[in-house]
Amino acid sequence: MRARDLAVDFPTVTLDTPMMEAARLLADQDLPGLIVVDDGGLPRTVLPGTQVLRLAVPRYCQDDPALARVVDEAHADVFVRSLAGRTVRECLPEDPRELPVTDPDATVLEIASLMARTRSPLVAVVGDGRLCGAVTLQALLDRVLAS
Amino acid sequence: MRARDLAVDFPTVTLDTPMMEAARLLADQDLPGLIVVDDGGLPRTVLPGTQVLRLAVPRYCQDDPALARVVDEAHADVFVRSLAGRTVRECLPEDPRELPVTDPDATVLEIASLMARTRSPLVAVVGDGRLCGAVTLQALLDRVLAS
Repeated sequence: MRARDLAVDFPTVTLDTPMMEAARLLADQDLPGLIVVDDGGLPRTVLPGTQVLRLAVPRYCQDDPALARVVDEAHADVFVRSLAGRTVRECLPEDPRELPVTDPDATVLEIASLMARTRSPLVAVVGDGRLCGAVTLQALLDRVLAS
Repeated sequence: MRARDLAVDFPTVTLDTPMMEAARLLADQDLPGLIVVDDGGLPRTVLPGTQVLRLAVPRYCQDDPALARVVDEAHADVFVRSLAGRTVRECLPEDPRELPVTDPDATVLEIASLMARTRSPLVAVVGDGRLCGAVTLQALLDRVLAS
């Protein structure tokens, strides 16, 4: 069983997708994360759901968790406001790190190691210069535990 | 909107739960992670799904990703074998780190910050000395984006 056997079609967003639209896609389709593709349709990055959430939390709350306590429910829309009006491009983290992207020949163990190492429940599969699909943590567990 | 309004009942495992049973629970119920409780019913740790997966990957594959490539599909059951016969207690990571656990008064921003910081799509809510439930990333996004 290789990545090509586990990969399924997965929705993508582009660098120009409004961040609110990307967040709604994640929520409405219960996705484990987002695949952001470049103009050539190749993964520019893969954002686990928790890292999409990070983009929605104002920096002053991330830097000082105590501040997040005093922003009460009357200001909960600060959350939405921090996404509104921005594109995915404007929200992307700058830190270069290992991307959860692999090739169609990757083994189950390889995909599992990659998910664990990058803490991403979503791995994009790229082969022959194009995005072939994605493997989710749930799909991987289902297949492995069924065998 | 506070943690108490967002928390829902969530299945738990104990330190003595067989690891295979814990992994099956995660897969079968499509959970974002596992809450491991101690004898008193309080969270001992919270494991995001990707970190449960880490427990299933033999150490030699984690340390040397190239090795994971050469373990072909005929040996995919190495994955299951590494879990079988072990309890959750025997699999828990030893590294002390911030746990995704909060109290019923936590604000939406506080929960979101905690999820982003700990990279956990699951936060346990503890109040009055007991586990009150859990907030999932999906539930949080649903509530925030609906407002």
